[in-house]
Amino acid sequence: MIARHRPTRSGPGSRRGEERGGELALLARIRARVAAAGSSRNVRLGIGDDCALVNVKAGEEIAVTTDLSIAGRHFELAWHPPEAIGHRVLARGLSDLAAMGARPVAAFLSLGLPAALVKRTAFRGAKPEASMQSSWVDRFYDGLLHLAGAFDTPLAGGDLAESPIAAADIVLLGAVRRGRALLRSGARPGDSIYVTGSLGGAAAGLELMRELATRKTGGAGRLRIPAKIEAALARQLYPQPRVRQGLWLSKRGLATAAIDLSDGLSTDLGHLCEESGVAAEVNENALPVSTGATLQQALHGGEDYELLFTAQPGARVPRTIAGVGVTRIGRVLKRSARRPLVTLATPEGRQALEAQGWEHFA
Amino acid sequence: MIARHRPTRSGPGSRRGEERGGELALLARIRARVAAAGSSRNVRLGIGDDCALVNVKAGEEIAVTTDLSIAGRHFELAWHPPEAIGHRVLARGLSDLAAMGARPVAAFLSLGLPAALVKRTAFRGAKPEASMQSSWVDRFYDGLLHLAGAFDTPLAGGDLAESPIAAADIVLLGAVRRGRALLRSGARPGDSIYVTGSLGGAAAGLELMRELATRKTGGAGRLRIPAKIEAALARQLYPQPRVRQGLWLSKRGLATAAIDLSDGLSTDLGHLCEESGVAAEVNENALPVSTGATLQQALHGGEDYELLFTAQPGARVPRTIAGVGVTRIGRVLKRSARRPLVTLATPEGRQALEAQGWEHFA
Repeated sequence: MIARHRPTRSGPGSRRGEERGGELALLARIRARVAAAGSSRNVRLGIGDDCALVNVKAGEEIAVTTDLSIAGRHFELAWHPPEAIGHRVLARGLSDLAAMGARPVAAFLSLGLPAALVKRTAFRGAKPEASMQSSWVDRFYDGLLHLAGAFDTPLAGGDLAESPIAAADIVLLGAVRRGRALLRSGARPGDSIYVTGSLGGAAAGLELMRELATRKTGGAGRLRIPAKIEAALARQLYPQPRVRQGLWLSKRGLATAAIDLSDGLSTDLGHLCEESGVAAEVNENALPVSTGATLQQALHGGEDYELLFTAQPGARVPRTIAGVGVTRIGRVLKRSARRPLVTLATPEGRQALEAQGWEHFA
Repeated sequence: MIARHRPTRSGPGSRRGEERGGELALLARIRARVAAAGSSRNVRLGIGDDCALVNVKAGEEIAVTTDLSIAGRHFELAWHPPEAIGHRVLARGLSDLAAMGARPVAAFLSLGLPAALVKRTAFRGAKPEASMQSSWVDRFYDGLLHLAGAFDTPLAGGDLAESPIAAADIVLLGAVRRGRALLRSGARPGDSIYVTGSLGGAAAGLELMRELATRKTGGAGRLRIPAKIEAALARQLYPQPRVRQGLWLSKRGLATAAIDLSDGLSTDLGHLCEESGVAAEVNENALPVSTGATLQQALHGGEDYELLFTAQPGARVPRTIAGVGVTRIGRVLKRSARRPLVTLATPEGRQALEAQGWEHFA
């Protein structure tokens, strides 16, 4: 729990810890902000005890996911604004709920941070007028809690610790009607393959940030993002998890399988095929490539957090779900030793679409 | 989810990743070990999809806790055997469930590790005969899964990432009958204060390890723990969460409030008083000090993972609960500006018992 701190040697009732800007102060600010966001009927007991107490409705199962984000691996402190890091951390978890068709019930955050990111003083690169008002971690929570509010997801607990590197583990609990969860394992040969939204935008944004950082700071130093290119970075900085689309699919019982595109189409479609025991073919010409993105980014770039799902050939899949476009990009095939797990059909012919992600510890 | 990896550029169905000993191999070993432990009726879907699916019984609430452990803060890679670190990581979470009187339902682990701890080769200080058989991380899971088995707690998911430092976030889901959870906030003036087991043993063990490390390695280098002192370190290396005792208290409705002693008596009793709006007095002479521990270690040492609970004056609290001794150590008082939050009554008189823990980010 966030409340599991070690207090200062202060007298009874003292608030010295809070005045000093340490863990107690941060915890008090988080509790106040979460309380201000209002109560949730899903969370009977939130921050402040050994555990939170959470309820779901009769007939619902609990979906649980955890996602660990580490500075230098999943985000760059020098590139990503603190609000964007908070947003992205939560978006990863919400996207996993979306992929199961679950409604968000509560979030928990375990946060390890260097002390410098908690101090309410100027941090490198902050605008002068903001620097004395909020620390990096306050701005991180701004981003996280804003997205949490948009999806009615109360922050119900977590843990705080000082750490040599910034690390954030987000835990999401969701609820889904028993038997209605969208699984990776249900795709069958003949099914059509769909994606929501467009692909490659997050990777294109990352590439743009990398170019900017190299040009402006030589790759070191903190990147200040010019206002005029913020829109081009939106898919990278503030990805929108497809929670409403996943819920819609789960309620209609329309998808045979689903996964979220966090590691890129080539990788995640491979996962779905592995778990379903099938193969797949993607039509290059059908791919909804994001504006400003390349085909390679659409095929292999991660962090778009779109949904990929399969549906039976006769299923009536609409062109948009909850305001987001849906595109048929290919079909499910029988698994066979003679064909690749995933095939890319191009005007020039067919070729294997290999997973282009990287593997931790490889 | 643990399955959220980025795979290698391997062909369809290839197992090259597993042969190379990277993330895929580690994931495959974890999945196999968890599957071998047998299925759980609480977990309908475990490792391998975007979320796990978990069920509790009608009339139960879900208790959720997360605890982040970081190398150099919560454990020492050079001192603690890998099995002990795995055990301690899970024990922290189970102890939070115990403090709520919840039964364990499922565990999730987000693990960030330097690549060297995943390699199945010799690691510094390993016994030669073991060094080629298992990596640090395999031995970490040995300790974690052994404790998980002892408390029927399936590992149902998590996440894996390469990280410059070792960090483990444990998430526990438990179930408790609606309205029966033990809270920190229920203590009332006049209640008696009890603890399970004995206090100070974990801190005494840590001190012993520190002395050994200084003498044998000058404080650097890996500590080899002599077999003859292993027993004296048991409370530090393999603390036993009081899950059965918490369940007993919850079922009997006997405790008015409870908390687990993770940060030390002076600190955690202070938390309970704060949340209940009361004060407390502890009788020094009544404290069950662990063999080999000092009074200071019993008062302020953390990591004992005993339960502290309060009960009404007339309550019939037995001398042992589920095989563990219970000791009355003091009483709950009215909160007042004229007395400390927690008072220590000694043969020489009364004094304030101040929280002696430390605060992150202070």
